[in-house]
Amino acid sequence: MFKSKSKKDKTKEIITVRDVIQVDREILDNISSLIEIKAEKSLLNIFADLHTADIAEIINRLDTEDAKYAFSILNTEDASEVLLELDENIREKILKDITPDKISDIVDELETDDATDIVSELPEHVADHVLKTMDKEDSIEVKELLKYPEDSAGGIMSSDYVYVLNSATVKDAIKEIRKHADEYEHIYYVYVLTSEDKLIGVTSIKSLLINEPSKKVTSIMDEDLIYVTPEVDQEEVAQIMEKYDLVSIPVVDSDKVMLGRITIDDVVDVIHEEASEDMQRIAGLSEEQEQSDSFFRISRIRLPWLFVGLFGELMNALLLSNYQDMLIKFVIATFFFPVIMAVGGSSGTQAAIVMVRGFSTGDLWISESLKKLAKEFFVALLNGLVLSIVLFGITYYFFSDQLNFIIILSLSFTVVIVFATMIGAIIPIVLKKFGADPAIATGPFVTTLNDIIGLSVYLTFITIFVA
Amino acid sequence: MFKSKSKKDKTKEIITVRDVIQVDREILDNISSLIEIKAEKSLLNIFADLHTADIAEIINRLDTEDAKYAFSILNTEDASEVLLELDENIREKILKDITPDKISDIVDELETDDATDIVSELPEHVADHVLKTMDKEDSIEVKELLKYPEDSAGGIMSSDYVYVLNSATVKDAIKEIRKHADEYEHIYYVYVLTSEDKLIGVTSIKSLLINEPSKKVTSIMDEDLIYVTPEVDQEEVAQIMEKYDLVSIPVVDSDKVMLGRITIDDVVDVIHEEASEDMQRIAGLSEEQEQSDSFFRISRIRLPWLFVGLFGELMNALLLSNYQDMLIKFVIATFFFPVIMAVGGSSGTQAAIVMVRGFSTGDLWISESLKKLAKEFFVALLNGLVLSIVLFGITYYFFSDQLNFIIILSLSFTVVIVFATMIGAIIPIVLKKFGADPAIATGPFVTTLNDIIGLSVYLTFITIFVA
Repeated sequence: MFKSKSKKDKTKEIITVRDVIQVDREILDNISSLIEIKAEKSLLNIFADLHTADIAEIINRLDTEDAKYAFSILNTEDASEVLLELDENIREKILKDITPDKISDIVDELETDDATDIVSELPEHVADHVLKTMDKEDSIEVKELLKYPEDSAGGIMSSDYVYVLNSATVKDAIKEIRKHADEYEHIYYVYVLTSEDKLIGVTSIKSLLINEPSKKVTSIMDEDLIYVTPEVDQEEVAQIMEKYDLVSIPVVDSDKVMLGRITIDDVVDVIHEEASEDMQRIAGLSEEQEQSDSFFRISRIRLPWLFVGLFGELMNALLLSNYQDMLIKFVIATFFFPVIMAVGGSSGTQAAIVMVRGFSTGDLWISESLKKLAKEFFVALLNGLVLSIVLFGITYYFFSDQLNFIIILSLSFTVVIVFATMIGAIIPIVLKKFGADPAIATGPFVTTLNDIIGLSVYLTFITIFVA
Repeated sequence: MFKSKSKKDKTKEIITVRDVIQVDREILDNISSLIEIKAEKSLLNIFADLHTADIAEIINRLDTEDAKYAFSILNTEDASEVLLELDENIREKILKDITPDKISDIVDELETDDATDIVSELPEHVADHVLKTMDKEDSIEVKELLKYPEDSAGGIMSSDYVYVLNSATVKDAIKEIRKHADEYEHIYYVYVLTSEDKLIGVTSIKSLLINEPSKKVTSIMDEDLIYVTPEVDQEEVAQIMEKYDLVSIPVVDSDKVMLGRITIDDVVDVIHEEASEDMQRIAGLSEEQEQSDSFFRISRIRLPWLFVGLFGELMNALLLSNYQDMLIKFVIATFFFPVIMAVGGSSGTQAAIVMVRGFSTGDLWISESLKKLAKEFFVALLNGLVLSIVLFGITYYFFSDQLNFIIILSLSFTVVIVFATMIGAIIPIVLKKFGADPAIATGPFVTTLNDIIGLSVYLTFITIFVA
């Protein structure tokens, strides 16, 4: 359906087909016109055929007032699901206009991990009101979950899991699933706990189905547990779940007392978030940019790192001004500033991104860093030599009367590439060792540093050997 | 366990604890020593306590001969799981040394989608032999799956799904699950098909558990289907599954005939693969670099885009050489080459990465491109003006005797930033429109282009207004 239907068909589908509809520009325009004339009934008619994720995608693209109106006509259940999928800045604007009581109703519909995310974004007095008026049991759990940092296992776990005691039978476990089936969206496993809430095993719904109802769960449960403690970073949780192909992972404290569980859908979001974060660092964005951001906000997100580049390269300008007399005599040296900067910079970025990627996928262990650096050194030397020989050949063709200069240019080029590669490789390791985000090393900071070091090396070589 | 235990504890765990062990340098070293003395029994003892994903992580780090030995002592079932997790180049080396008959045995253990991946990597005559000697039914399915491109929905789907006819009851569906429970690892849904194999609904294991065994599956199934056709790109599959929070998605042909299903664990791999691919483009790597790559291979992966940078910037050098006389007179102009190049380049990269990211997450529709470009233009103009004013202030402090020059420098700086941003934003859109990977725009190619255009604009301004 997503590919094969023509545009004409799609409009018809809104009315006739029960399958989920992919939203597009046309549907967005239709909805915008209907909002303008406040055609609530027709809008709800369209929304009824859309998945809540698509309604959110539409609302993300509307003007603030239209977005508020569209959200306001949704029933509480749909509103809760749409809210989760909205861009953060749109969500903030919409929530500002809703009464705390309505927010409570919406939050009551959510699983505890999602409810916690929403509550944590609210202004304190609104959050307090919501926590007081929402379902009591949920409120206690949300307060508990609010204690953990947002990007830790505790911050993304949910308290909505199905468990049985170790004395239970398969039949008991199935009964327990039935009890929670409506309330919990994702049930893949039943956890087996001792009377002190300690996790001792796990069994899949699949194995409950294929085993005799009278069997003890302890006889069919899997005891090779893979779990995390609440302080584990969400990126590590994602790595573990990906590595072991898990759809759900339990979170326990140091005594193995069960605290919650994390499901794969949240981890898919984490993987995306972390990839976005890496990209953001590489692009030199100070915060994540969302599609619905205003151009003032985009400007504010992008300027800080552009200033880092500006100030760094102004230092470079002052450095160069010290070589003024030499540069007037050897103006040819200035022609190769771009070569030195760009190729040096690219070598450094290549090394940095490979390191950062290795750390963030878990494929690279910090204990292997030295071995890796040795490899980087040889790669840099080899590439530096190859590139320098080509550089020499080409420049000799164009500037054959300046043999001395181009020999020194080519030699310093190798040194620059080795320096830049090693800086690109070392900085992520150092950042990682000190607990900082290694991805910072891929951004404008290191490129600027490499420009300064590269030009210094180049000009020093020329001063010593040519000028 | 992953965080709280000390190193000492970990070594003990190998023998005493049944929980899964995280591998580290120490375990790797122990295993290396045991391989050296071919201590097969002790090795198998350690492997028995490791998850197959961890055994693969160890083997990825061994020398080729050691890796082959470690793999050879595994039983067929473990070998099949380990094989899937190995780096591609290690897998290739290991498979080269194994008889086609043993490969058949290993492939027989795999689900059809994984079996297809392995067979597609084999040399043709080995693949033919494996397809002939493996389980007949699986062989037919694998041959069918081999027809689809590797990165399409067809290429990542599996034929191992549970289905019932529309006449079936809940009890029948449970019976069907029992029949396949051993063979299929991931069972979350049962698909409901007509006698012509057309997909008409889906029901989760959870709803089978909570409904009466005598009920018809058609009365409990979900008819709001979300599915893909086999030619859909795997990145789009990942976007759809992420958007709608799916753990499994059916693949059907244009007549809705069921062909297979894709599970979330494969999609998590796709998300990682696509993020790695984007990173690889940004870093200017010609292929993906794996941790186990030799330094010759790494050099070969990195050199092509470094050459693009080298040749592009050499064109820049020739361009600059045309301005030789002017540059000797105004050597101060050369001091600001780094500022022009670096800040222009960063502005372009910021715009390009935001566009590429928007396309790859599906947050940005191609139909919104013009609106986005208008926004980019205003962002660029605003940032250009802000940065130029700061540039003017600082340079005026240091070079106040060159007022004419620094006015022109600041003016051209704004123009360069606007140009670079727009090029960074437009090229991904053009690439996307023509079906190419927009991420190419984030690499050295566009940076080099921006350097050439930036310096041209700058020098043209100086020639006209100052020199």
